[in-house]
Amino acid sequence: MKSPVASVPATAQTIRVLKFGGTSMGTTPERMRAVAERVAAVHREGHPVVVVVSARGATTDELVADAQSASAAPAAREMDQLLSTGEIVSAALLAIALKEAGVPAVSLTGAQAGIVASGQHGDGRISEVEGSRLREVLRGGTVAVVTGFQAVGATGDVVTLGRGGSDTSAVALAAALGAEVCEIYTDVDGIYNADPRIAADARLLDRVGSTVMAEMAYSGARVLHPRSVELAARAGVSIHVRSAFSEEPGTTVVSDETGEEMLEDAQPVTGIAHDTDVARVVIRPGTLAHRGTELFAALAEASVSVDLVSRVGDRDIGYGWDFTVARSHLDAVREVLAGLGCEADVHEPVAKISLVGAGLLSKPETTGRMLAALGRAGIEAYSVSTSQVRTSFTLPKAHCGRAVGLLHREFRLDRPAETPGQALAGHAVAV
Amino acid sequence: MKSPVASVPATAQTIRVLKFGGTSMGTTPERMRAVAERVAAVHREGHPVVVVVSARGATTDELVADAQSASAAPAAREMDQLLSTGEIVSAALLAIALKEAGVPAVSLTGAQAGIVASGQHGDGRISEVEGSRLREVLRGGTVAVVTGFQAVGATGDVVTLGRGGSDTSAVALAAALGAEVCEIYTDVDGIYNADPRIAADARLLDRVGSTVMAEMAYSGARVLHPRSVELAARAGVSIHVRSAFSEEPGTTVVSDETGEEMLEDAQPVTGIAHDTDVARVVIRPGTLAHRGTELFAALAEASVSVDLVSRVGDRDIGYGWDFTVARSHLDAVREVLAGLGCEADVHEPVAKISLVGAGLLSKPETTGRMLAALGRAGIEAYSVSTSQVRTSFTLPKAHCGRAVGLLHREFRLDRPAETPGQALAGHAVAV
Repeated sequence: MKSPVASVPATAQTIRVLKFGGTSMGTTPERMRAVAERVAAVHREGHPVVVVVSARGATTDELVADAQSASAAPAAREMDQLLSTGEIVSAALLAIALKEAGVPAVSLTGAQAGIVASGQHGDGRISEVEGSRLREVLRGGTVAVVTGFQAVGATGDVVTLGRGGSDTSAVALAAALGAEVCEIYTDVDGIYNADPRIAADARLLDRVGSTVMAEMAYSGARVLHPRSVELAARAGVSIHVRSAFSEEPGTTVVSDETGEEMLEDAQPVTGIAHDTDVARVVIRPGTLAHRGTELFAALAEASVSVDLVSRVGDRDIGYGWDFTVARSHLDAVREVLAGLGCEADVHEPVAKISLVGAGLLSKPETTGRMLAALGRAGIEAYSVSTSQVRTSFTLPKAHCGRAVGLLHREFRLDRPAETPGQALAGHAVAV
Repeated sequence: MKSPVASVPATAQTIRVLKFGGTSMGTTPERMRAVAERVAAVHREGHPVVVVVSARGATTDELVADAQSASAAPAAREMDQLLSTGEIVSAALLAIALKEAGVPAVSLTGAQAGIVASGQHGDGRISEVEGSRLREVLRGGTVAVVTGFQAVGATGDVVTLGRGGSDTSAVALAAALGAEVCEIYTDVDGIYNADPRIAADARLLDRVGSTVMAEMAYSGARVLHPRSVELAARAGVSIHVRSAFSEEPGTTVVSDETGEEMLEDAQPVTGIAHDTDVARVVIRPGTLAHRGTELFAALAEASVSVDLVSRVGDRDIGYGWDFTVARSHLDAVREVLAGLGCEADVHEPVAKISLVGAGLLSKPETTGRMLAALGRAGIEAYSVSTSQVRTSFTLPKAHCGRAVGLLHREFRLDRPAETPGQALAGHAVAV
């Protein structure tokens, strides 16, 4: 991403970038006024303000349902065109509410705000923010209300960034405009070290490192869009997650450099994430010959993200592969497999649980301790995979809640961290 | 408008431009499929097809209500941004439904379709159709589903064309692509010679001249957007109005040249239009001095259309003005009057009734006969004004229905026209 930070005009006040999710925007005039009042307060302090908004309430789900009532497999390009309207409505209504509150405001679509994306429809990646119009708006003292989730592609058409992509929009704008912090207002109080709906003693964190947070987000913690965490870390932007419904201080996601030395003595596991929308695909040994490269290239081509990949089989029976994908990608996976003519077993629904922490590989006992605790509870773990920052496995979905709870206790996540640097990330409810 | 007719590729089949209104698009999957099937049938005949769509059902009204719950006076620029989403949703869903029916289709916003407008937000005028993308889509055998009602303005922002503006979008596209006919599918069977809800014996017309139709549309007949009729006449495009819900043949609006000789012996009155959303403004003599020019310039500046203008008063008491405006423009009018410091009486709600016909001025008895018929029924007419093609007056709204009925009988509009050239235009229900 081109970062036009250098060309940001000197202002007395720092630029503030605030993002409001769908539940925060709500569907009532009262909710809209509450958001407008919150933005107005920041504007009154003299800050240039960019607000990034999601579609109100269940708008996106309703539009998806409308599309599916017209076709079981609507074209991705038309879905992008369709879904982008949800954020446009949000942004225009918030601009109207802000003006009513005496705050000059203008709504901008992703294209109007200069957010450019590459990649496929429904899965775009922000490649550039051409912020000249945005800066002109801010220079005039006007609040820019920008649609999240959407960008303009090379052909001039709308490209959306995937569910939750508004977080990434907000971080990209913060980076482009030179804001130090991107404020994410949501319907939870911040980042917990496990899903509070499952682990009753889950704790709210005041700080969490970006590597851990990114790993948590990719592993199923839905409070932040995974790419937003990655992008923020790369751009040196802190993310501040807090409630749109209260004045609670929330959680700050800090870049790892900030707290690296504090992380060294941390407990090995700093949070537990889980994802119950997973399928496990096992390609039968011998049916794919040596075409692993072709397989993963074809999956990438079809925009399917794979996780927990392991090679199975041996020279005698031949080789196969074991990996997990999001269930929503299963149709695409089946198409790829059919194209390669190989046989596979698909297990679904399965859950994926991940223990996340800085330096897990340097604490090799973690995986053993995890498997032992599961074994004592009679829970079988599949697809076990360990990296520098997480160790993950799959299990039947029905056992997910019990497993998260027992691992939470096993790794002492119910007790306060001893140093702030131990800040833990966890699964939180969907934004 | 630049007319790129010359560059239209030679095709075996003529280009068909079909427009579907909000009620025709409906809000159910069944309605969407019915529209898709209708379009698919035309595509199967081998025609390049452009479909222009309005927002589904009451979408626009709902968005307006949402905006008004945020502010009593939402900014026009934000309203345009907001309302444009209704047509985008319609177009994307229809494209999805068409593909499901096996017809390649792509949805295009006004901007993507190259529809450029000048003028104010909420009241844009199409100034150009830059149809290169549209033609590329059609060349590939793909149906282009274009959002009606919206265009792109000079700044790259959305500019809408006023309520009913989708008709004008469709005609502009027909003109730009060299289509001879613009087909308007709506929720009525065609053009009636009076509002069938008021005049029980109103007749459906098979043909109507464009001058009469334009005058009718401006005078309150809501089945076609007034500017669409004007634009069609100028561009030599016929408009074919027919039901989206039946196979009835509907009404063709033909350019006057086509039937001019037939119109000569026609009855003087060829249709009756009425508009019940009118206010009558009377500027008290002496309070405006000689500033008539300033007054009308200021009203034009505020995008207020005036009708039935007459000068009142005399040299002794001074001069004033009597005119009508749409009630929706009253706030703007009051602002203008306050700016000029003059006193006015505003009468509302009043109705405006117009007798429309080619060559009314050459039949001077028409106005007398009209006033006599009203007088016999005890109905007082105000603001009487006569032009070449219509004679109009205002009256208290409560008497409107009775007056339309009695004039319909007085001018024999309940009997079939003696020649096709007598084709009559009338008020029809809102699109």
